[in-house]
Formats: sequence, C-alpha cells, structure tokens
Amino acid sequence: MKVGIVGATGYGGLELIRFLHNHSAVEQIELFTSSEEGVIFSSKFGHLVQIADTPLQKIDHDVLAQYDVVFASTPSGVTSELLPPLVGKGPKLIDLSGDFRLKDPTSYETWYGKKAAPFTSLQQSVYGLTEWNSEAIRQATLIANPGCYPTAVLLSLLPLLKEQLIDPNFLVIDAKSGISGAGNKPSQTTHFSEANENFSIYKMNTHQHIPEIEQAISIFAHVDTTITFNTHLVPMTRGILATTYAPVLPGITEAQLVACLQTTYEKHPFVRIVTDSNSLATNRVKGSNYCDILVKVDSRTNRATIVSVIDNLVKGAAGQAIQNMNVQFDLPQTTGLDVVPFFI
Amino acid sequence: MKVGIVGATGYGGLELIRFLHNHSAVEQIELFTSSEEGVIFSSKFGHLVQIADTPLQKIDHDVLAQYDVVFASTPSGVTSELLPPLVGKGPKLIDLSGDFRLKDPTSYETWYGKKAAPFTSLQQSVYGLTEWNSEAIRQATLIANPGCYPTAVLLSLLPLLKEQLIDPNFLVIDAKSGISGAGNKPSQTTHFSEANENFSIYKMNTHQHIPEIEQAISIFAHVDTTITFNTHLVPMTRGILATTYAPVLPGITEAQLVACLQTTYEKHPFVRIVTDSNSLATNRVKGSNYCDILVKVDSRTNRATIVSVIDNLVKGAAGQAIQNMNVQFDLPQTTGLDVVPFFI
Amino acid sequence: MKVGIVGATGYGGLELIRFLHNHSAVEQIELFTSSEEGVIFSSKFGHLVQIADTPLQKIDHDVLAQYDVVFASTPSGVTSELLPPLVGKGPKLIDLSGDFRLKDPTSYETWYGKKAAPFTSLQQSVYGLTEWNSEAIRQATLIANPGCYPTAVLLSLLPLLKEQLIDPNFLVIDAKSGISGAGNKPSQTTHFSEANENFSIYKMNTHQHIPEIEQAISIFAHVDTTITFNTHLVPMTRGILATTYAPVLPGITEAQLVACLQTTYEKHPFVRIVTDSNSLATNRVKGSNYCDILVKVDSRTNRATIVSVIDNLVKGAAGQAIQNMNVQFDLPQTTGLDVVPFFI
Amino acid sequence: MKVGIVGATGYGGLELIRFLHNHSAVEQIELFTSSEEGVIFSSKFGHLVQIADTPLQKIDHDVLAQYDVVFASTPSGVTSELLPPLVGKGPKLIDLSGDFRLKDPTSYETWYGKKAAPFTSLQQSVYGLTEWNSEAIRQATLIANPGCYPTAVLLSLLPLLKEQLIDPNFLVIDAKSGISGAGNKPSQTTHFSEANENFSIYKMNTHQHIPEIEQAISIFAHVDTTITFNTHLVPMTRGILATTYAPVLPGITEAQLVACLQTTYEKHPFVRIVTDSNSLATNRVKGSNYCDILVKVDSRTNRATIVSVIDNLVKGAAGQAIQNMNVQFDLPQTTGLDVVPFFI
Repeated sequence: MKVGIVGATGYGGLELIRFLHNHSAVEQIELFTSSEEGVIFSSKFGHLVQIADTPLQKIDHDVLAQYDVVFASTPSGVTSELLPPLVGKGPKLIDLSGDFRLKDPTSYETWYGKKAAPFTSLQQSVYGLTEWNSEAIRQATLIANPGCYPTAVLLSLLPLLKEQLIDPNFLVIDAKSGISGAGNKPSQTTHFSEANENFSIYKMNTHQHIPEIEQAISIFAHVDTTITFNTHLVPMTRGILATTYAPVLPGITEAQLVACLQTTYEKHPFVRIVTDSNSLATNRVKGSNYCDILVKVDSRTNRATIVSVIDNLVKGAAGQAIQNMNVQFDLPQTTGLDVVPFFI
Repeated sequence: MKVGIVGATGYGGLELIRFLHNHSAVEQIELFTSSEEGVIFSSKFGHLVQIADTPLQKIDHDVLAQYDVVFASTPSGVTSELLPPLVGKGPKLIDLSGDFRLKDPTSYETWYGKKAAPFTSLQQSVYGLTEWNSEAIRQATLIANPGCYPTAVLLSLLPLLKEQLIDPNFLVIDAKSGISGAGNKPSQTTHFSEANENFSIYKMNTHQHIPEIEQAISIFAHVDTTITFNTHLVPMTRGILATTYAPVLPGITEAQLVACLQTTYEKHPFVRIVTDSNSLATNRVKGSNYCDILVKVDSRTNRATIVSVIDNLVKGAAGQAIQNMNVQFDLPQTTGLDVVPFFI
Repeated sequence: MKVGIVGATGYGGLELIRFLHNHSAVEQIELFTSSEEGVIFSSKFGHLVQIADTPLQKIDHDVLAQYDVVFASTPSGVTSELLPPLVGKGPKLIDLSGDFRLKDPTSYETWYGKKAAPFTSLQQSVYGLTEWNSEAIRQATLIANPGCYPTAVLLSLLPLLKEQLIDPNFLVIDAKSGISGAGNKPSQTTHFSEANENFSIYKMNTHQHIPEIEQAISIFAHVDTTITFNTHLVPMTRGILATTYAPVLPGITEAQLVACLQTTYEKHPFVRIVTDSNSLATNRVKGSNYCDILVKVDSRTNRATIVSVIDNLVKGAAGQAIQNMNVQFDLPQTTGLDVVPFFI
Repeated sequence: MKVGIVGATGYGGLELIRFLHNHSAVEQIELFTSSEEGVIFSSKFGHLVQIADTPLQKIDHDVLAQYDVVFASTPSGVTSELLPPLVGKGPKLIDLSGDFRLKDPTSYETWYGKKAAPFTSLQQSVYGLTEWNSEAIRQATLIANPGCYPTAVLLSLLPLLKEQLIDPNFLVIDAKSGISGAGNKPSQTTHFSEANENFSIYKMNTHQHIPEIEQAISIFAHVDTTITFNTHLVPMTRGILATTYAPVLPGITEAQLVACLQTTYEKHPFVRIVTDSNSLATNRVKGSNYCDILVKVDSRTNRATIVSVIDNLVKGAAGQAIQNMNVQFDLPQTTGLDVVPFFI
C-alpha cells in the first residue's frame, strides 16, 4: 500500500507516521503540505531523522489520486475543500478533521463558524467510529474520523443508551483533555508557563463536539437527546478522560451495565472494560489505541458514573484512522496498532 | 499572639507557617510533633532555613494550653483525641482534619472508617466556612476547618441553593484536585513517574467529603439533598477546580444566578465572581486565599454549569484556617492573607 | 513612594506587582504600556482582579518623571531608548532588561545582535548585584538589574574567585532554567506539548549572559577569565540551578570554600549557604528572593562543584530589582521581600 | 525464543514487556518474581490487560534454565546471587542491574555499599555496550547491561577519546535524568508534590556510575582517567541528557570531532549525530532506542561541549538489553526496536 498524508506537520500527522512506520501492509509513505514544498521533513522534526528524511511534497490532486489511501490531518475548514475532488478518483480518503462529521451543514456552520463542505460530500462521508460502523466503513470512500472527545464518550455511552439502561434525558458529560488536543500551534493558553500547573475549563457549553456526539447517539443508539458537555484542560500532553453522569433506568443494576459493556465489546480488540474502580487512568492507554471503560452505580442516588479513557492522539485521532484503513482493506484491525501502552 | 502548630510537617502545617510568618498579629510560632522532638525544623525542610530554625517540641497539653491559638494539621483520627482535652483550657483550637466536621458520629465512622471524636466535642465544634458562618466562628473555641473540596463546592453552590435558583435534586459535582491534596506521605499513586502525565478518577462515589457537603447544604441553604460527587487527580501540585451541573429552576436566568453570587459575596474579600467564561483556571488563585466562581446556563438544556477554583492548600486548608483565626480575634479577615496569586 | 512599571504585562512586571502589593513603603503602583492604553489590567490577567483593576497608561516621559521609581521590564532593545531621557529627571530607574549591563557597547552588539544604549547611559548605569554593589546602588540613578543566570552564578563564584580559592582558568558553568525565563511570548519551544516531558540544551556557547558574567567577575573578583557556559531548559515554570566546576587551588580545602561563602554572606539576608549535599533544589527558594549555595570538593579530582539555586523571576529579576530599590531608599533590604519559599 | 523476565514489576521489566511484545523472534514471555507468585500480572498493571494476563511465577532455577534468554531486572545486590547458578546452564543471561558491570569487586563494594558478585561471574560477564562490544556480546553467556548514565556518556565520549581528539584529563560530565531512573519505589524525593516543579542535584561526586564510566573508557578508549561526574533530577518521567565539557587537543577542529562521531556510528542504526545545535532534546528519542549526539567547540575557550540524549528506560535499560539479545542470536539489532520516537 502507498499512503499519502496531507498535513503531516500536525500532531495527528506525526502520530500517523509513528504507527504507519510499523504497519506491515504499508510500503510507502509520502508527506504533503500546502506551504513547505521541498523541505526535508526530518529537518523540521529531529526525532524523525533516519525515519522520514523525505521532502515535503506540494499538494497535487493528480498525484494524490494515485495513492491507495490519503489521510488528511489538516485543520477543519481546509479538508472540506481538499478532499471532495478526490472522491471516486481512486484513493480511500480518511479525514481527521471535523469537516465531514456533521451531516447537517447548518449545524456545522453554527458550531464551527466556518463554511460547510459540499452537501454531496457530507452525504457520501461515513462516520469512522470503528467499533460501531465497520460495515459502512469497509465500503466507504470518504471517512470522517471521529473527534477525540466523541470517541471517548460514544464508546462508553452507546451500549448503555442503545440497550435502554440509562436515562438519555439527563446526560452530563464532564470531559478532560491533555494539551496536545489543542494542536501544534503556539498560543497563550498552551504557553508552557501558563498551562503548566494549571487546570481550566474552556468552551463552556459551546464545544463543536457536542452536535457530533448527539448525532452519533441518534444514529447508533436510536435516541434523540440534548447533552450537557463541558471540557477541561489538563497539564499533561496526552490523554482524555470523560466522566459521564446519568440516572439508571428503574430496575437496572450496576451488574447489568457492566455486562452490557462486556458483551458489546467482547470481540473488539481495542475496548477494555475495567472493573476495579481504582485503576482507571489515562496512563493505562497512553501511546496506544485502547479505550478503557469503567461504570459504577451510586446506590445513594441510583445514578451511574461512566468513565472512559483514551490517548487523544491515538484512539482519538491517528490510531482510529489507521484502524479504519485496516477495515477498508480487510486487514485485522490491530495491524500496525498492536502496541503496549506506555504507563510510565 | 502566640501560635502553636501540631503536625507542622504536613503540607497544611507548612502552609500555616508560610502565611503566619507574615501575619502582623502573630508574635511567636512553635511547632509540635508526636515523634521528632528536638529536631530542628529547618533541617527537615531546607526552604525554612533562617525562617523556622526552631526545634520540634513534644506534644504536651499543659504547654499547648498556654497558647492563644492551636492549629492541628494532624491526620483524621488523630485530632479527635488530641484536641478535646484542650477545649475550654484557653487556646482557640482550629482543626484542619475531618474529625470535627460531621455532627453525626455514625456518619463519620461510615465514611472515614475510624472512630469518631467524642460526641460533646462534635457538638461544640463550629464549621469554619468563613463566609457563611463568621458569627459562630467568632465565638467558637473549637473550629472544624472545612475540607478542600467542600470549600470550593459550597462557596459556589450555597447562594444558588439558598435562594432556590437551582434544582437541589440533581446536583452532579465533578471535582478535580492537584496531587498535594493527598498529603506528604509517598505512595504508588503519588509516585512521580506514575502520577505525572496521568489523569485519573479515584474514590468513586465514596469520598468522605460527600457527607460534609450535604450537611453544610442542609445547615446553610436549608435544603436536604443527596449529591453525586466524584474526584479526579490532576498532574499538578496545587489547585482544585469543581464543576457542578444543576438544572435551573423554572423562570430563572443566568443573569439572576450571577447577580445572586455577586450580591452574596459583595463584602467578602476572598470570593471573586468571574464573568468571562474563558478565564477560570486554577492559576488565577494559586498560592492565595481566593475562591473564584463562574456560572453559565446552557440555553439548550437549561442547566447551569457552576465552576469554582481554589488553592487546595490555602483557601482549602491553611489560608481559611488563618481567616477563621482572624475572625476569632476580631482582626480584618485579610490579615496575613493579602497576597497576590502566583498565576505563573 | 509612587512606583511606575513599564512593561507590566511581562512576567518580570507581574512579579513586581506581586511583591510591591505588599511593600510597606509603596503607596501607589501605576502600569505603563506601549500598546494597550486604557485596558484594565485585570481584564488581561484574571488573577489580579481586585488587586490591579487599573487601566494601562500610555508611556509618557513627563508623567514618568513624577514617579519615585520607574521599573522597566520591557525587552532588551526597548529600554535602551526608553530610559535615557529619564536619567536625572527625578525617578530612580531600574531596568530588568540586558540593555545597560554591558559597559562595552561593542560587546552588547555582538552578543545581543541589537543596537547598544547610548554610551553615556552605559557609563552612568550601576550593576545591581545587590550583595556585591550596594554602595554604588545606593547612589545610583540608573540600575542595570542583573540577568537571571548571572545572579545565580556570580553569587556562588565571586567569593571563591576573589579569595583565590578556585582556579579561574577552567570555569565550566552548566546552567538549567525553568521555562518562564523565556518570557510570556508563545513559541514552538515553549509550546506545552513540546516543552513538557522534555529537557534540552539551547544557545550553546552563545548565551548573552556570558559577557555579563565575565565582566562582573573582572569587576568584583578582579580576575579576567573566559568562561565555558551553557544553558538548558527544564520542564518546569520557575527556578534556576547552576552547577559550576572549577579546580581547587593547591592546598585549599572544602572547609575553606564553605567558610569563605559563609563569611561573605553572613550579614546578607537572602543568601543561604547549604551544607547538606542532599538538599539543594530549586523548590527551596521557589517564589522567594533567596539564593542558596552549596559547594563540595571531590577528593578524587580536587575539583569543586559549586551549585546555586534561585527563583529566576524573583532573585533573578523582580525580587532583586525591589531589593535594589530598597537599598536606594535606605530601607531594610528585606522590605516587601520577606516571604517564605513555596517548597510545594 | 522463550524469554523469562525476573523482576518484571520494575520499570525495566515493564519496558522489556513493551518491546518484547512486538519482537518477531519471541514466542513466549514468562514473568518471575520473588514475592507475588500466582498474581495475575495485569491485575497489578492495568495497562497490560489483554497483553500480560499471565500469573507471576516463582523464581526456580530449574525452570529458568529451560529458557533461551533470562533478563534480570531486579535491583543491584539481588542479581549477584540470582544469576551465577544459571551461568552455563543454557539460557543467555542479561542483567539490567549494576551487579556484573565492575570487574573489580572492591570497587563495587566501595561504590555500591553491597557485597559484590562472585569473582568468577564478574570475570565471565561481558559489558553490553552494544555499539562497542558486539563481538564479545555475541559469544557471551552473561551480559552486564550498561547503566543509563554510562550509556549516554560513553557513546558520546568513546570515539573522541579513542581517537585522541579531546583531553581526557579534564572531563567534566554534568548529567540530568528524568525521575523514572529512580525506579518504581515511592520515596520523599520522588513524591509528586516535591519532585514536580523542582530541579535538584543528587549524589554529588558519589554516583555509582562513576567507576563504570571510567572502567569503560579504559577498556574501549585505552585511556585511564578520573572523571568529574554529577547527576541532577529533572521533573519529567523519561530521558537523560548528558553534557560533557573537555578541552580540545591542539590543532583539532570541531569538524574533526563531528566527523569522528559520524564515522564511528555510520553503520550503527541507533546512534544519530546531530549537527543543528538547536535541536538536541530528550523528546527526540523518547520511547525509542536512539542515542542522539551533538558536539560543538567554543572558539573562545577551545573547549568542546559534547551532548547526548537517550530514553533512560530504553537505550539506557530495556532497549539496549534487547539489542544485546538480538546480537547474541544473530538477529538484526533493530528487531523489535524499530519504533518511532514519541516527540510529543
């Protein structure tokens, strides 16, 4: 397989390189850019010396059309123009941005404050939540890779909502992310001296992942709901932990919630159900494609606390993108992704 | 004033020393310990050379009885035996542990798993949430200084509950703390290589601060409620951010919530109401006795998000203890505490 | 005293505010800026709400001339033009930048790559290494506050060089700094995700503090030497630790080195000589104006290891600047600076 | 290949598992322990669920004798007794501790303060600095895997010393390590709240890696020297950066130093010579087996600054151990180790 990565200088792109380097089915990786044509990639990223000593190439649709897969890890608002001309031209297209996730262009424009992708492309795109959509992914040309927060939230909630074990009318999702989620562009918020030793809330009630989560709950769990969702910045580089609170429906027990999750993900290599409430932490999954999930019911309130962790750059971005590529090419989902989490 | 600190080697004790050193009404500070009598304090804590070069003294009730104030920053389960003999013997007693906070000994024994303090002492103790209990504090002999999480949570919720602006029946509190909250005793959880670059949930639905929060809501807001409360560990040393979700009661607006908070704390020097939703962060209050509070209502769900930040070791422990001492001695509350937060 | 701060938005400026807020002789603090006239300072820095709710003022030399002290914490290359017109107009001038430190304009232009300040101003300026130059500081109008690295290095080396206890011909200085030393302007190097969990060397053999150190050794220890000096970036916000290696001169013992340091700084409240080799760490001095120094001689090589720590923003910048102001106004050096280090 | 790991619960052991999991020649990995027989490994380390769900086994020499390779990642003082009975019994033995590194038992006892391994075993052991000793490693039964600091230091210095380009009589080595180097056992020094935001020097002139470095310089560069060596603790988990200062010998240029390093390591896949002085940082090698080296000569002093970085747990421990195993089994050195560094 011949793989092209557009937007390789972003953190999503760097993680794609990290995993594709050890992917047994990938023979060639080329890197494309809008602005630094000819620059040797490893001269920008010293950790890639001897690994990616190739020049960045100009984005050219005729050239890209000859690849088996094209990953776009460009920002939202860019891929909406970049990928549509390539649809049907040959390559499988996997977009890591938010541009093709929302089916409703009005919703996109409201939450992203940018012009939506062409309506036809939005219709063609397939939501790449691998564990829940693999049939459609297998046949898709254009994949909208899920957002980092939605991945963590949906994997933990969808089974419980679909099986009608928790009340969809009071879903409170309190999410926390490492700072790499903000990308590689320096800003005051991500300036070390101001982000270090600091914990903050941001985009209160206005995060663009809200409609993505609601849309996926509607499609995969067949429930229409309006969620409460807030995001916080953790002084660490990688990792998302999402804590969701929901009333348990009458007569439902903690054991049933656990069983539902276990049954749902029994055959899925990257989702692990945790039962020891003292051991859910982002370092369980750091650097890996795992999503670990824990659920507890508070007998005092009969409310469930549902917690999930992922590495935002892996299962929340590049790892799931490669998992989707594996599905598209009928490879085992773990190909190139079977790595041990870092822990330390 | 002559001040004694029992348990000075803990982080609460160290912060007491940091602030009392610059307290204009304090003339003498002596440090007491159960196990290291005679050891020069600054030989254990190099940052205190030239500041606290005094020997640790043996705990002796006759000696302690001669002080104007005795702070106890010993662990829960210790002060319950240490302080009762001193009640009425002269000194004002301020306990930073959880031993005198819960009025119901059964509740203490359930949540703490330890033997409760004598019933009489529990009755005598006054809950030291300064902004809400200053009259009782002024006359108290034995003060139960609030827990770190309850301080952050109660200051933000009490006005809104008392004025019946939010629904007390669905309070979801998602709290996050820096690691100093775990104290100075090394453990696997607080081992740098395992705590760094890691975010985790702990004590799910079982934190001992739950009954403390519920009791204070009952007493100060006159509402009986059962809360959902969870705690997380943030890879930083200082700071607590608590995010509370609650339905807004019918007809109530965000402006009313903000106004209620502003009115409540108008005359209180250490509570600041924040209106810019992009600026609530623990580094706003780092090293200081401030509690900053922000409230937003999500018009999609009509639920309020109420966020507060404190420095867990200051407003959440030593700072509030000194604020209470100031109230007891009719000093301005800011005496010795009027410091600028660190930010960086 | 009426104090003006030009460049208040930088980290040096923020630290000046933090300390001057509690300075007993300072009655008024006004903040000046080149670009944000009228902006309420605390609207930019939320931690200063209720503390610095004043508007930023336009830089106006006639206005500044009416202050007792003007601190400039603007970048190098700016103060060289800003301060000279104010010399002799009334205020004491204290510059935190590098613009007035090097007496030789050619050297400045070589190491800083910028135009030097007017020669007359360079001649008038007094180097503000308080412990070594207080007589001149007392009478000075224009003070060049020392750089952060030079402060840590010089305080530890000058006594030993002046007393001819170590060999000046092979001084190897390996310095490490927290990231706040890079200032408040975001960059790729200081972007959290790339600075966190990373340790790097920078400006190899080319740091602009090299000539400053050599000049001060020449002036205060009467030795001309060419040093080896390198700097590293530590993934923390505050703190400098400088490790210097030097051969001990024949017949000199470790005890003599220690005694020399102790004698030199006996009367100086902010320099502490440490003798326990296990306890020198930047958290001993965090947030304070202390400089802690430790010296050990390796009997295998007869070389001394001389280590010093400071908080780069305090003793390395704002703290020493206020210490110099105190000297100029015949106040005790500790006025406003007598704070307990943070440790945690 | 069938691999046994004794002391799997340490950080070295965990890293062995991380890499061996993806080693194409390894079919079976079993974990041995002195104290927790029968415990399911992943119940202790949640990140290893589905990866290492095997029980810890009792250490039994007869069982271990049936393995192809036995890695010992037990502490110094333990392997000296554990491994000798296995020598010649079948398995290749690779010791990650310091017990078999020093040929002179007296030196071991002086620097480690423990009883040395049997003299015969010390004689049989081969120092596993792969790039410099691969012939002996290939034939060895018992490998003493190098220490983390020595690996970083020796790889950078040996070529320059062997080719007589730098002066061996004034080697000053200033080394800095992430905190994982202290192992997995909690202590006050590694307690998060005291290690975070703190930089310190430790074991001044007394680190047990000093004789190891001197011995290796003598053997591989044929120079007897007494080094100055100090170590510092960096508030991060992984990574070592060692900065060495040495006078350049007369007539030698920076270009010659660079060329010497490049020539030496031309054929070695894990050593990269860096020429851009702005890009040497521990995040270049994080999570990988690379050692990156940079040398600069200061024309003012004619002294070389030689800097190298490794991941202390990989090239400084488990990675190099596997690299040695690869050499012993005539596999390409990169087998199982060809991973992309993390950078972020």
